[in-house]
Amino acid sequence: MTSLDDLPVRDDLRGKNPYGAPQLAVPVALNVNENTHPIPEGVATDIVASLAAAILGVNRYPDREFTELRTSLADYLGYDLSPENLWAANGSNEVLQHILQAFGGPGRSLLGYVPTYSMYSILASGTGTRWIGAERDERYELTPETAVAAIQREQPDIVFLCSPNNPTGTPLSLETIEAVYAASTGIVVVDEAYAEFSTTGEESALSLLPGRPRLLISRTMSKAFAFAGVRVGYLAADPAVIDALRLVRLPYHLSALTQAAAVAALRHSGEMLRMVDEIIGQRDRIVDGLRDLGYDPFRTGSNFVLFGGVDDPQATFRALLDRGVLIRDVGIPNSLRVSAGTTAETTAFLDAMAALNSNA
Amino acid sequence: MTSLDDLPVRDDLRGKNPYGAPQLAVPVALNVNENTHPIPEGVATDIVASLAAAILGVNRYPDREFTELRTSLADYLGYDLSPENLWAANGSNEVLQHILQAFGGPGRSLLGYVPTYSMYSILASGTGTRWIGAERDERYELTPETAVAAIQREQPDIVFLCSPNNPTGTPLSLETIEAVYAASTGIVVVDEAYAEFSTTGEESALSLLPGRPRLLISRTMSKAFAFAGVRVGYLAADPAVIDALRLVRLPYHLSALTQAAAVAALRHSGEMLRMVDEIIGQRDRIVDGLRDLGYDPFRTGSNFVLFGGVDDPQATFRALLDRGVLIRDVGIPNSLRVSAGTTAETTAFLDAMAALNSNA
Repeated sequence: MTSLDDLPVRDDLRGKNPYGAPQLAVPVALNVNENTHPIPEGVATDIVASLAAAILGVNRYPDREFTELRTSLADYLGYDLSPENLWAANGSNEVLQHILQAFGGPGRSLLGYVPTYSMYSILASGTGTRWIGAERDERYELTPETAVAAIQREQPDIVFLCSPNNPTGTPLSLETIEAVYAASTGIVVVDEAYAEFSTTGEESALSLLPGRPRLLISRTMSKAFAFAGVRVGYLAADPAVIDALRLVRLPYHLSALTQAAAVAALRHSGEMLRMVDEIIGQRDRIVDGLRDLGYDPFRTGSNFVLFGGVDDPQATFRALLDRGVLIRDVGIPNSLRVSAGTTAETTAFLDAMAALNSNA
Repeated sequence: MTSLDDLPVRDDLRGKNPYGAPQLAVPVALNVNENTHPIPEGVATDIVASLAAAILGVNRYPDREFTELRTSLADYLGYDLSPENLWAANGSNEVLQHILQAFGGPGRSLLGYVPTYSMYSILASGTGTRWIGAERDERYELTPETAVAAIQREQPDIVFLCSPNNPTGTPLSLETIEAVYAASTGIVVVDEAYAEFSTTGEESALSLLPGRPRLLISRTMSKAFAFAGVRVGYLAADPAVIDALRLVRLPYHLSALTQAAAVAALRHSGEMLRMVDEIIGQRDRIVDGLRDLGYDPFRTGSNFVLFGGVDDPQATFRALLDRGVLIRDVGIPNSLRVSAGTTAETTAFLDAMAALNSNA
């Protein structure tokens, strides 16, 4: 039998394993920061109607410029954005890959503040971009001073700022983003995948776009819009940035079904986002509940909570799994990450944690 | 206003334009080798039912391994293939990109026989792979001797064989494919995007897979399945090759909607493929009709025809467009390419060509 080692695979891929959390069928899955609320029935019906219309034309290639989707996304974001400011792809991972293909690659570097979204370094590797993992402050915070010091030292071609940060949940101030932009000469990407769950009262980095042509704000419909399965990431930036991304995208990269489903969901943004408030409530319950149990939850502006104070993360992970609750060991010592679910799912998680504590 | 030149875009992208045929709204569009037949109503209804079921779960990430789709594709292809032999992505362009990411890249080379599918060199450039355009025989044919001579001279890491070839339509013999495989030490990809339209009586290169772990056969649902808008390309190869592609794909690259729609369409492969026979009939009509008008159509095993004997391709292209018929100038001197449409579309094209002739 032929094995991977028998094939002329690239040297830098030898010995590697594919990225991805385990796909396990469990009653309570709170491991990959999904929105555990299904799409409301009325919205689902409207999306299906749009899909039924789209299927009649799928013998033809889709609109390569996805103009209607870009218009809908601009309307949703506000901030006087127009379709020319918008880009989209199959998940924000593909948006970020387009950015690295256009502005990164061999001889160029990408800086992020670790721990951060683990796909950043994988995307860097996949595009031949050198990855630089810079440090954060205490409790994963990122002050302007710390952020700028790394920029000045490393002079990266691209900076990825995850706001709020995954997997720590840490909110990021506009002050830090402004300082990073001012200190750098390259592309600055603010990854706002979880922005809709923010409760700091601070505005989106979208407010910083005017006059900053090197600033890119990426978003996703996976979380707030409960659309992880549809794969829609997007980006707002200067129209010249969008022109650059057109040079590297595969033609017709967004299917007619993806475009139709996303446009339909965006018509119902008000109803979709009402789920967000409920999730924020459950997230805050998790923070309080874990603190009551003696754990150390970190500050979060996201739909998930990283908590420290776990003596043996692997043991706790397995004990929870035995109780039908799947969370995530993100490899940070003495810590685990849990996504906020429905009221029942959150209760199941907190009850299981309490049971572990009383057994200990 | 910021322009692309003001941004730190990669040097090799400067001055480039995005790939893509013009998107024009015309009565008869025969320019991008689409299947001009809409999906039959009964099939469309079943696909929509599958999409309606899938939408209920899109708050969760899709099956990263798209196991059901790989099973359906293996069943469709036959040749004793199993799901472990199958891979899929958002269009065959993404499948080919995955291959170059896994086996190509900086320091490696990709050889194709020109003129061939223009995305090959673009995908090479996008992944930092060196592109080698080797020559064909007379009338775009490719004999084993000519093909092997280029392999021995260039020693490429990857070979792309387009069978039948786009944009010339030229069928490729299994004998040439076998000879290329035997002469090379690297990856050999047979791109069978248009294989279902073949009328040479020769088998698919899938028949060559046993015992050839470096042989990859790529296909698409865009053409024979009238699914260009859904974006489903796929590949059959040794399971070790599939393992290699898993290392470079973005996680969850195939949406739940794409998976559901493709699985549903594959349930109706018999009905979908009945359109293929009709298209082959129209293609043969085009060949005969153009020959009667004094043009020089090339041998084709595809759903399109390249024809020579055009004095001024740009003038003919424009004269046809004035008559509402859009075809393609693929940049080959004195030639144009036309896709086979429905009976009515094919008639419109042939009538327009006849009218041009009588005006000349």
